[in-house]
Amino acid sequence: MAAEPLFERLCLIGVGLIGSSIARAARAKGGIARSIVAHTRRPETLARVRALDFADAVEADPARAVAGCDGVILCIPVGAYAGVMHQIAPHLAPGCILSDAGSTKGSVVRDLQPLLPPGVHLVPAHPMAGTEHSGPDAGFAELFEGRYTILTPLPGGDPAAVEKVAELWRRLGSTVERMDPDTHDKVVAIVSHLPHLIAFTICGTADDLAEETREAVLKFAASGFRDFTRIAASDVDMWRDIFLNNREALLEMLARFTEDAHALGRAVRWGQAEFIEDRIRRGRRIRRELIEHKQA
Amino acid sequence: MAAEPLFERLCLIGVGLIGSSIARAARAKGGIARSIVAHTRRPETLARVRALDFADAVEADPARAVAGCDGVILCIPVGAYAGVMHQIAPHLAPGCILSDAGSTKGSVVRDLQPLLPPGVHLVPAHPMAGTEHSGPDAGFAELFEGRYTILTPLPGGDPAAVEKVAELWRRLGSTVERMDPDTHDKVVAIVSHLPHLIAFTICGTADDLAEETREAVLKFAASGFRDFTRIAASDVDMWRDIFLNNREALLEMLARFTEDAHALGRAVRWGQAEFIEDRIRRGRRIRRELIEHKQA
Repeated sequence: MAAEPLFERLCLIGVGLIGSSIARAARAKGGIARSIVAHTRRPETLARVRALDFADAVEADPARAVAGCDGVILCIPVGAYAGVMHQIAPHLAPGCILSDAGSTKGSVVRDLQPLLPPGVHLVPAHPMAGTEHSGPDAGFAELFEGRYTILTPLPGGDPAAVEKVAELWRRLGSTVERMDPDTHDKVVAIVSHLPHLIAFTICGTADDLAEETREAVLKFAASGFRDFTRIAASDVDMWRDIFLNNREALLEMLARFTEDAHALGRAVRWGQAEFIEDRIRRGRRIRRELIEHKQA
Repeated sequence: MAAEPLFERLCLIGVGLIGSSIARAARAKGGIARSIVAHTRRPETLARVRALDFADAVEADPARAVAGCDGVILCIPVGAYAGVMHQIAPHLAPGCILSDAGSTKGSVVRDLQPLLPPGVHLVPAHPMAGTEHSGPDAGFAELFEGRYTILTPLPGGDPAAVEKVAELWRRLGSTVERMDPDTHDKVVAIVSHLPHLIAFTICGTADDLAEETREAVLKFAASGFRDFTRIAASDVDMWRDIFLNNREALLEMLARFTEDAHALGRAVRWGQAEFIEDRIRRGRRIRRELIEHKQA
């Protein structure tokens, strides 16, 4: 708690669930930043962030927000990175560390690296934490505790900058792992992006059912469907951008999944009990392995 | 608590999660049955049921188990109904009520009604309650509290028998609804059976990934995937039978779902942001409606 702050002046570009949780954790835990600058675009969010009072300064202009900061973390939907980077790049201080909290990493390198000023260190990061709630009111200091944060450092990047970002996430309560952006994007496509695509889809499928059945669907939503709708309650802009920015890995996983779903459907149609049992057993085995990995 | 028992001698054919929960609830709540007979086929389960001591009698022979009972509830996988019915039908006492707790209802009418002796009343029921655990150790008296139980009474069936089964489930803590078997099977296909098919499938898809990615998948299973594996941990025999006995409704829902998943995948491929946003918003709306229905 009494550790020297990692950053003198840390700028959070976007203070929704993730950004506001970083700000709250920085205050609650200490050792993160001497002062926090929050940037948000929308006037109504600006007022709300001021009222919530988790940042030392609130700035509507991203260029002014990053000025004089030794750390900048993008906490906005990944589709907005390129536009914001155009605005802030000329104002990033030499030696500044630029990081992010986005759920795709290939796109982040693609959108940020070409505009990176010399002397500014890019360290992409992805805290694997979240809830189905969004906005500056949804954040809380404990969001990252016990969760993994994946860093995808650039080849030839500054090791000290990478270590500083790793230490930031450790101080926020995360376990830090390193990975290349391609592997990251494939892993999250199957563990998170495809499940979300499926959850959004099945809610729409239910929504399309005839009115009478749909009322009953809502009434009798068993735990299976209920879990899916919890996932499906997530933020629109964030998930649109994730889908569009992890296109290849997501479409590959979707193709594999639909092939497998069709195979299971075919076994149901033709009464192939053994095939069906095998598929159910595999689900159980994965579950067991997850429990052994303490992720269940 | 002091209510007269609904049944003099109630037989539970099968005492896994559901059957053993009925037995435990009957003891704990009273007003259900003066005595409980448990039937289970496997010798090791028989011994375990005796040791757990939630029934007044334990019988390995289904014909002897139902003899002299005024109530019989099938609590076995729906695929085993026809075989068991052949064994018990000649031994069902006149006036006896035959019910069940299966997750499909069209197949139950199909398998039981042709063998129903005159004077025996069939009242199919489906308590929409469960956990990912199975077996006689998994049951608990509170399993049905606050959950719906759907009855699908036969046209021209005895109203008093239907009311008695309804009262049984109310005393077990359920809210009772009535529905025709076709509507029931469609509703559970979308709220429960399709989500399970999807969960089993995505676990298999993950299992097929290259070894390196799969280790990472297990390590970084975010909440989306973790929820899916919880669903996928369900009982093999029960779910094989559900899939095979709700074939038509399940395949129809799977077809609708995969069409919708392909449409969303296509929008991702072609960068159709508005289409994607619309699908995500529909998920959120369904979630909101579920919360209004107090099912979330």
